[in-house]
Amino acid sequence: MTEHQSLPKNLVADLGARARNAAAMLAALPADTKRTALLAVAEGLRAATAEIEAANALDMARGAENGLSPAMLDRLRLDAKRIAGMADGVAAVAGLDDPVGRVIDTVERPNGLVLSRVRVPIGVIGIIYESRPNVTADAAALCVASGNAVILRGGSEAIESNRAIHAVFAGALAANGLPADAVQLVPITDRAVVGAMLTAEGVIDMIVPRGGKSLVARVQAEARVPVLAHLDGINHVFVHASADQAMAEAIVVNAKMRRTGVCGAMETLLIDRAYPAIPALIAALKVSGCEVRGGPGLRAIVPDLVPATDEDWDTEYLEAIASAGLVDGLEGALCFIARHGSHHTDAIVAEDAEVAEAFLAGVDSAIVLWNASTQFADGAEFGLGAEIGIATGRLHARGPVALEGLTTYKWIGRGSGQVRP
Amino acid sequence: MTEHQSLPKNLVADLGARARNAAAMLAALPADTKRTALLAVAEGLRAATAEIEAANALDMARGAENGLSPAMLDRLRLDAKRIAGMADGVAAVAGLDDPVGRVIDTVERPNGLVLSRVRVPIGVIGIIYESRPNVTADAAALCVASGNAVILRGGSEAIESNRAIHAVFAGALAANGLPADAVQLVPITDRAVVGAMLTAEGVIDMIVPRGGKSLVARVQAEARVPVLAHLDGINHVFVHASADQAMAEAIVVNAKMRRTGVCGAMETLLIDRAYPAIPALIAALKVSGCEVRGGPGLRAIVPDLVPATDEDWDTEYLEAIASAGLVDGLEGALCFIARHGSHHTDAIVAEDAEVAEAFLAGVDSAIVLWNASTQFADGAEFGLGAEIGIATGRLHARGPVALEGLTTYKWIGRGSGQVRP
Repeated sequence: MTEHQSLPKNLVADLGARARNAAAMLAALPADTKRTALLAVAEGLRAATAEIEAANALDMARGAENGLSPAMLDRLRLDAKRIAGMADGVAAVAGLDDPVGRVIDTVERPNGLVLSRVRVPIGVIGIIYESRPNVTADAAALCVASGNAVILRGGSEAIESNRAIHAVFAGALAANGLPADAVQLVPITDRAVVGAMLTAEGVIDMIVPRGGKSLVARVQAEARVPVLAHLDGINHVFVHASADQAMAEAIVVNAKMRRTGVCGAMETLLIDRAYPAIPALIAALKVSGCEVRGGPGLRAIVPDLVPATDEDWDTEYLEAIASAGLVDGLEGALCFIARHGSHHTDAIVAEDAEVAEAFLAGVDSAIVLWNASTQFADGAEFGLGAEIGIATGRLHARGPVALEGLTTYKWIGRGSGQVRP
Repeated sequence: MTEHQSLPKNLVADLGARARNAAAMLAALPADTKRTALLAVAEGLRAATAEIEAANALDMARGAENGLSPAMLDRLRLDAKRIAGMADGVAAVAGLDDPVGRVIDTVERPNGLVLSRVRVPIGVIGIIYESRPNVTADAAALCVASGNAVILRGGSEAIESNRAIHAVFAGALAANGLPADAVQLVPITDRAVVGAMLTAEGVIDMIVPRGGKSLVARVQAEARVPVLAHLDGINHVFVHASADQAMAEAIVVNAKMRRTGVCGAMETLLIDRAYPAIPALIAALKVSGCEVRGGPGLRAIVPDLVPATDEDWDTEYLEAIASAGLVDGLEGALCFIARHGSHHTDAIVAEDAEVAEAFLAGVDSAIVLWNASTQFADGAEFGLGAEIGIATGRLHARGPVALEGLTTYKWIGRGSGQVRP
């Protein structure tokens, strides 16, 4: 290994060793201690508003110099209001129920051995993110609240902002009896550190990428450490023949247009060939400002649509465009979603309960909804408080992942001298 | 890609596509259908005893020709008794509670949306194993019972036996309304198929290696698909100063000597420097036939011990050898286990409940036991019926993994027209 390669590796090994020590201490802390410390962080963020704004101004100036787009600069920007929002977010996480120590189940074996599965923190979490500096506070709070040590690797364009936010965490945690290494920020911006984190098996227990599709794709492709993420949200709404017309129109328009850039947005509308009000449904979507790209069957009924190409059915637009096509009832919808879906969130609108239940059972996605908008795909809307992300993988945790998904369990057995015959 | 490389890849893609279709069907089957089919498999295995013995005889003859060791030949060998045991195992799995469809939790949101997390099968499981043909029946039964399709890749030395067992599954499953592709056996013995399975992301959802350490190590090193496994069981028993002397001796001897070759066997004995009966404890272990390799502190008290080298503390002997050393109370034991343990199973013997609870909380292993032998680390002993394996990873499932660990969950939301404001 050349020196160039070994530096990031050594850095990650060092951060990881500190994090592992911190994790051992964090795992033993009562909920109240973590809560008090996070409330102090929230207070500290508010008190450090000026310092954080000043640090952010350095990032913004460098960003403008480097020609970042207005959208990227907006993501990077912190002002007093956004900093207050960040502090509120940390305080909200402090108010969540602590999953650590929760007993999943207990059984007494015939020999008297009492076995319980008890929730414990995962250990060391790596967060890899881009330009939004608020992720620093958000992700760190969720990890600390669930007893995990975290290694944060934010975008180089936000490094000054991230350092300022991290300084508040380090100070407030240490002042409240938590290890300062519970939250560590990768101190350098060398991109090779990302690669070293992704391959740090046994050092980092789970990686959560937070950012755009190219970041998530890179992380998923390179990681040897388990990754919690979703790549695409190619979400379907299926309007069944039995759907209430007004409800169908309201849900479809909301699912697509409430916010087009979120991962829970509808991308594809599937309409049962037997649904009696197809033109009105398409009209509602168009009136809301959505471009509708139609399949051939649909265009025979609603002629003035952009034709959908093969590619459209596999596209996550994240803007005011939807593909729409006719399918033959439930079976047609299930086949279509199995072929083109991304296992994120899919919904049916139907009055026929039997069909709806068959849809809920038959669609292999993290979230399946009946008579509700796909835009509910969100940890807060699910009552989880906040989320570290939405997962479309099949193991460990699925859908919105919050504190519980940042824990694992161990088996604890209490005996009275049992030996195995 | 050369033709040589693409053949195994294409084969795995084909097996995977068939498995995915079968999985979709399996996921929808009621528990009774799966149970009936598995009972028919058990009956079929008994009825096919002669055919299976004949197939096994071919493997045994080839194995003897190829110079397999007596131990390997014994693992490979099937006779009427072992086939009956295999059938009993399948019938026992058929009798386990089906986790599929189990509701983990349900919440009604303020807007009336009712959200439940419901257990569903993982999908497609790959099993990679060595010479024991009974794994074919055992693993296939667990996967089918939990609604998963399985791709079995057994050792080339057992291919005829595996084919005969697989034929019984295929026939009995299809005759009872299950897809024949629910259980597939890789039809060729090319070792490159293992590599293709390990990198079949999105095709195979989880790999379970069943076999020796070199197999598990290869799978863990090469896999891009999530792996459920443990590599080592370097398990500790810590005898605290407060331990009951007779209990400590009984547990230590049982943990090491009941069966030395199992992954739950004790490998390292840690004795609190303040424990009052150290020589008697070592004597009990030696009387049971165990070689004790002692650290310097222990040898100062019990002189006639083989000196333990640095390597000994990180060695899984799997035979009648134990390393043993003195530690300074609970804190010393926790540090030692953190440094040398393999996160499998560790136990404390103590009468002091406060110390014991601190040990249970502080040891970061899949299984932690108080006043019980580490040899209980076993799915059947934990009341799980049977196990697909013991996992020392931190995500998804930990410790003995049975039917529940072969499932994941999805979020099901039932609304009445809710849209997100």
